[in-house]
Amino acid sequence: MDEAAFIAALRTLPLHPGAQDLRDDAAVIEVGGEALVLTHDAIAEGVHYRTGTDPADIAWKLVAVNLSDLAAKAAEPIGVLIGATLVEDAGRFIHGLREILAEYGVKLLGGDTIAHAGPATFGCTAIGRATVRPVPARTGARAGDALYVTGTIGAALLGFDGDGAAYLRPRPRLVEGLALGPHVHAMMDVSDGLLLDARRMAEASGCTAAIELGAIPFAQGVHDRLAAARWGDDYELLFAAPEGVRLPVSATRIGTMLEKGAEPLLLDGKSPPGKLGYEHR
Amino acid sequence: MDEAAFIAALRTLPLHPGAQDLRDDAAVIEVGGEALVLTHDAIAEGVHYRTGTDPADIAWKLVAVNLSDLAAKAAEPIGVLIGATLVEDAGRFIHGLREILAEYGVKLLGGDTIAHAGPATFGCTAIGRATVRPVPARTGARAGDALYVTGTIGAALLGFDGDGAAYLRPRPRLVEGLALGPHVHAMMDVSDGLLLDARRMAEASGCTAAIELGAIPFAQGVHDRLAAARWGDDYELLFAAPEGVRLPVSATRIGTMLEKGAEPLLLDGKSPPGKLGYEHR
Repeated sequence: MDEAAFIAALRTLPLHPGAQDLRDDAAVIEVGGEALVLTHDAIAEGVHYRTGTDPADIAWKLVAVNLSDLAAKAAEPIGVLIGATLVEDAGRFIHGLREILAEYGVKLLGGDTIAHAGPATFGCTAIGRATVRPVPARTGARAGDALYVTGTIGAALLGFDGDGAAYLRPRPRLVEGLALGPHVHAMMDVSDGLLLDARRMAEASGCTAAIELGAIPFAQGVHDRLAAARWGDDYELLFAAPEGVRLPVSATRIGTMLEKGAEPLLLDGKSPPGKLGYEHR
Repeated sequence: MDEAAFIAALRTLPLHPGAQDLRDDAAVIEVGGEALVLTHDAIAEGVHYRTGTDPADIAWKLVAVNLSDLAAKAAEPIGVLIGATLVEDAGRFIHGLREILAEYGVKLLGGDTIAHAGPATFGCTAIGRATVRPVPARTGARAGDALYVTGTIGAALLGFDGDGAAYLRPRPRLVEGLALGPHVHAMMDVSDGLLLDARRMAEASGCTAAIELGAIPFAQGVHDRLAAARWGDDYELLFAAPEGVRLPVSATRIGTMLEKGAEPLLLDGKSPPGKLGYEHR
């Protein structure tokens, strides 16, 4: 059973309506008139980071990827719960946690640690309060919407090959997500590759995403643009908004949502060749 | 850094007030006039279960230990999020998840899986709605309270040495916890050993717990009573309630909370020798 089959099997279980059939990055539950956003992501040594990585960077990335899911829902973080392998240099893990909690004003709600052999694994659950209804999701984009992305694409790829800053210390777009919430029809974070994530948004929304490669705001230093557009870990926000809407934050238009066609994703008018991004095994 | 030092280091981070200084099994957050209970526990191969354990049993135990934390808070489960290593026989893991979700009427809110080498690890976050205020905690017991435990103690120890049913398939006391909520001054689940957990409640409440070994309702087949009182994994509810209160569920009185003395725990009037239970490394 590969990861896709596992997720498909999970979908056969009794799902909370807020789980949205496990087709989004976060669940939404209604409590006392508020909508809460819940997300859980786990990372493992040798899969999401290299053996030997500073545990401070691991802690940062662990929390950042979960906060990024809240950002895509225009949610204000309430707190995080951490499950951690007790690593050799756990003091550095604490240090990295302290850095990211301080940076984003997020509180620790709970923590659990396990001492075990083998590669380390870490889990984080983030919970936040939605600020806009409906809560932005992958679904909701409409034909005619403009497609945008915040920041630049490819810094994580350069970081993976270079000094690692953007790769290990992604900056979740919480401020931008909150500001964009009232203006978008659909929103998600770019975690598995811009092209793959755009295709997912198009599929979830019943549209075709038409993207112009030349319009994508690649990070300085990116030479292989197609590789960068397929690389994940940038944690920028990808969103669909009505044509002509005045955006409250800086973002780059990269394409248009079209009526659903034969292909869910077009790059410069054609179906892009090869893999679109990081497909979970 | 051992586990106790790690938790102590976590306490130096910016904590949510609902984290209760990480001295309880679950966090409580106020949302829209409701109190939500959040808990996260992780389990690892070779630590919490033996290599070769049926993944269906792993899934059951993973969810059960988290639901048990909700039970101790008199909380109704809303749902769970699962983070799982993609194990060889993942279909059995799904099967066990299906069993426990159906048994307790709990919904899946989200899931994440990671494919990595080495011992498997699993995390679960459970979220529930508190049904009583204040939400029961380890704190709150008062001198003069009677101390009770639900069910029997020692079945998990027998299961560990025997067929494993009670050890691998603990039954969280959700129904009992909900019923007891309005009647208790303090409540927690017995996960690390009755004596150790009773001492923790006494310490958190600023009391001394006086327990009679002969009053503890040991499971049939328990020969070494002291070993059973020190063994965790029973997931019964330990609670302090006012003397003479009429309990809505069956429970056994095992002792009394006293004014704080030199020792936080007395067994038959004396400080018990040796370790009291499973101290996290």
